[in-house]
Amino acid sequence: MGKLLVVGTVAFDAIETPFGKTDKILGGAATFIGLAAAQFDVQTAIVSVVGEDFPQEYLDIFTDLNMDVSAIERVKGGKTFFWKGKYHNDLNSRDTLSTELNVLADFNPVVPEAYKNANVVMLGNLHPNIQLSVLDQMTSRPQLVVLDTMNYWMDNSWDELIQVMKRIDVITINDEEARQLSGEYSLVRAANRIQAMGPKYVVIKKGEHGALLFHHDNVFFAPALPLEEVFDPTGAGDTFAGGFVGYLAETRNTSFNSLRNAVIHGSNLASFCVEKFGTERMLRLTKKEVEQRLKQFKELTQFDIELL
Amino acid sequence: MGKLLVVGTVAFDAIETPFGKTDKILGGAATFIGLAAAQFDVQTAIVSVVGEDFPQEYLDIFTDLNMDVSAIERVKGGKTFFWKGKYHNDLNSRDTLSTELNVLADFNPVVPEAYKNANVVMLGNLHPNIQLSVLDQMTSRPQLVVLDTMNYWMDNSWDELIQVMKRIDVITINDEEARQLSGEYSLVRAANRIQAMGPKYVVIKKGEHGALLFHHDNVFFAPALPLEEVFDPTGAGDTFAGGFVGYLAETRNTSFNSLRNAVIHGSNLASFCVEKFGTERMLRLTKKEVEQRLKQFKELTQFDIELL
Repeated sequence: MGKLLVVGTVAFDAIETPFGKTDKILGGAATFIGLAAAQFDVQTAIVSVVGEDFPQEYLDIFTDLNMDVSAIERVKGGKTFFWKGKYHNDLNSRDTLSTELNVLADFNPVVPEAYKNANVVMLGNLHPNIQLSVLDQMTSRPQLVVLDTMNYWMDNSWDELIQVMKRIDVITINDEEARQLSGEYSLVRAANRIQAMGPKYVVIKKGEHGALLFHHDNVFFAPALPLEEVFDPTGAGDTFAGGFVGYLAETRNTSFNSLRNAVIHGSNLASFCVEKFGTERMLRLTKKEVEQRLKQFKELTQFDIELL
Repeated sequence: MGKLLVVGTVAFDAIETPFGKTDKILGGAATFIGLAAAQFDVQTAIVSVVGEDFPQEYLDIFTDLNMDVSAIERVKGGKTFFWKGKYHNDLNSRDTLSTELNVLADFNPVVPEAYKNANVVMLGNLHPNIQLSVLDQMTSRPQLVVLDTMNYWMDNSWDELIQVMKRIDVITINDEEARQLSGEYSLVRAANRIQAMGPKYVVIKKGEHGALLFHHDNVFFAPALPLEEVFDPTGAGDTFAGGFVGYLAETRNTSFNSLRNAVIHGSNLASFCVEKFGTERMLRLTKKEVEQRLKQFKELTQFDIELL
């Protein structure tokens, strides 16, 4: 069975959308990545850090899904990373109301022995030095390393980010970040430039406008499924990434065609994530629902024009 | 051979983009619709009005492509409709610098006798009363009537627009217009509401973010082809509509599956239109280029996930 190593935040989120608000609920990039990857036949370990305030029942969620949580460090007396945000009416933009790094400030990732030869490594959005430390601990070059990052690291840790980019295969970023990273407005040109910085594949996430996968002159596109209502976009990008790496770790096939399918699986799972607050929808997602929606994705995008 | 009747503006445009600017060049909705439809095996007539200042060489463009221009009225002493606009740096928005209705102010469309039984009627963006007048002149109910309209008519001629909507099969509008017309923010809900107002099919054009086709609970999506550079978006929406109706008039098949293909053909042709100023690219477009890019559309969107 394919082995997937995920490093990223396991956190508390407090979310406000036009439809309601939550107290501190389970959140964090690694959480959403892990929950999405759990839809695939794969062994997953999560490397992260939480505080003493992090409830055992939340950790049990991961173990119940057969994830290895031995590398989620629980810091005595520490407080868990906390993010509070409020979405605007169109749900396409949000204000961060509060970010408390807490135990994340001194996070020192330790890769479990059994995962030092993982097939796929997913580097969730974190300081590039933490991402580098994880790669340094691998005893064999993973088949595929996927990096998620954000504009904050471009602004504050450019050199370190450039170092990570040289050691990965796929980068996932949003359209604005792709423009910032490359200095190009056109996403086609941006993707070309970014490939020259290291990753062979560039995934550009455009939220409700879908996701693009670039590889040399090849482009693949997956739309977001048009939904009657988007309730809470929190975690959609990480859920996309989780579906993407989960599929690739299961199939252990990293051809371009396989990555195309992975983009569809990621988009498919992300379409569930946004239907409820936080992880709520992902926690009660059935295989049947996933399969049914994949069918919708086919109907949404597949056509039958004969070419000469 | 299928017969296509197009009513819409034939005009002068003056365009400014970040890449350059033009003097008065050939423009107008019916122009772009006609040029796109000319890629298909179909007989097309254009119903429009121009002034005495409209050059014969522009009219020759249509006749050289075997279009019937007998119903393009040329008003003695009149001046041709003129639009001048400037695009912002991201090309997603523009300012109208000048609109001179000129001969369009008294446009009285006359459908050519031979096209009163056209298979497909494309009602380009015009006053709803002009669109109604065209429908009233048809001797038989066309197989398919497609309406393009805009927010201006929603603001100023709501009742007349509602009357047109009851007599058409497909409406093409952009996302903001769909929201205004329906009062719904979600495009899925907006499309449902709009279908209840008359059209069985709703096409929502999202510019660089592609186009959605709605029919009952079915949705189909075509992305815009990611381009290295978008030079001038003028006419892209009309080119899309022209490819859409051209394909449907050629095949005379108005099933949902046929409309899906039509959306792809429209998106495909629109991807050329934006590569040069005005009609420049469409005027020297070859069948081989069109076919080649359809292949790119397949590669962009088609995937191969087996479902149970």
